[in-house]
Amino acid sequence: MSAGGHGSGVERRGLMFVLSSPSGAGKTTLSRLLIDKTSGLKMSVSATTRPMRPGEIDGRDYFFVDKSRFETMAKEGELLEWATVFDNRYGTPRVPVEAALSAGQDVLFDIDWQGTQQLKERAREDLVSVFVLPPTHDELERRLRIRAQDSDDVVRKRMSKAADEISHWPEYDYVIVNDDLAIAQEKIKAILDAERLRLTRQVGLSDFVRRLT
Amino acid sequence: MSAGGHGSGVERRGLMFVLSSPSGAGKTTLSRLLIDKTSGLKMSVSATTRPMRPGEIDGRDYFFVDKSRFETMAKEGELLEWATVFDNRYGTPRVPVEAALSAGQDVLFDIDWQGTQQLKERAREDLVSVFVLPPTHDELERRLRIRAQDSDDVVRKRMSKAADEISHWPEYDYVIVNDDLAIAQEKIKAILDAERLRLTRQVGLSDFVRRLT
Repeated sequence: MSAGGHGSGVERRGLMFVLSSPSGAGKTTLSRLLIDKTSGLKMSVSATTRPMRPGEIDGRDYFFVDKSRFETMAKEGELLEWATVFDNRYGTPRVPVEAALSAGQDVLFDIDWQGTQQLKERAREDLVSVFVLPPTHDELERRLRIRAQDSDDVVRKRMSKAADEISHWPEYDYVIVNDDLAIAQEKIKAILDAERLRLTRQVGLSDFVRRLT
Repeated sequence: MSAGGHGSGVERRGLMFVLSSPSGAGKTTLSRLLIDKTSGLKMSVSATTRPMRPGEIDGRDYFFVDKSRFETMAKEGELLEWATVFDNRYGTPRVPVEAALSAGQDVLFDIDWQGTQQLKERAREDLVSVFVLPPTHDELERRLRIRAQDSDDVVRKRMSKAADEISHWPEYDYVIVNDDLAIAQEKIKAILDAERLRLTRQVGLSDFVRRLT
């Protein structure tokens, strides 16, 4: 049986599947749907220095570490990418990702363009990146105006942040427009299914072909 | 509306989708299924010097041309690839393919590794190539032993030809194992759907993003 569970008997190396988008484009919903409907795919769990919140579980939601441990991890190459958000640090531990890939499992990353660029530098061959766009300007604004009492100024700031994230679409392998959640979901699934069939991921092909002829 | 008919409003450039396999791997069946189930995809029609057979239609099954016309087409760069089989010549006319791609239509090619290599030299950016493998040695032999009265020698020759074709799998972008026709069909469809979402094919993305932000 293949490590990737393809049923074809060809051993497979896993891939790192990145979804990025501005907030309001539906990325988090799409990530959850993809995880639920796909075998052999797991969400990457980040390390963070922010305090654990009620209901969170260490190792499931995050790996909770203190600042000095985080510094050590970053310094010793134990993190694939990291960032600082409001004094808290977030990063992707390398070891669980490497273990998953070697076992033919794929790993899903819900990260922004900066995290994606860092991953690309460290793991180009294993990376597949997808950028999710909202369907229209008005729909993006509607989704960013979450509460009726949001001031125009707050919404303008959110739009500006979204525009900044969107400007990085040319750095991705694939771009999808999320105008219909079910269709967007199918498109993302097709990209993952196709990338699993790339020559470079099916590391057992030489052996398979040898048995064939 | 997009030329590619994606419904997302993003204009798309078509792609050249190549399926290759040894005979007996199910490629012709898979090609027909894909054409039937996919909008915006059409089969490439070859030019040939062989005589028209009863039931064939010029321009649908082949473009039937005489030898001197074929020579001129090859010499003047009107063919994307060509080959000689039993004194008859076969080739892919460039103009209909180029017209389809520009209109955001994809074109399917049912050709061998030599044709694929020629296409690659002439149109690398637009080409997506898939190699279809049979599931096992025994199944390949069973499919090549078409008639009960086939001699072992005939089957051996067919196996040897199949092994030669199979040896070219490393030159393709994707490899799928056809152990179940429905699953193989889904995999090929996923590859086509995913490739349509590649950044490089969605030529209208810059315009789309400009309207977004």
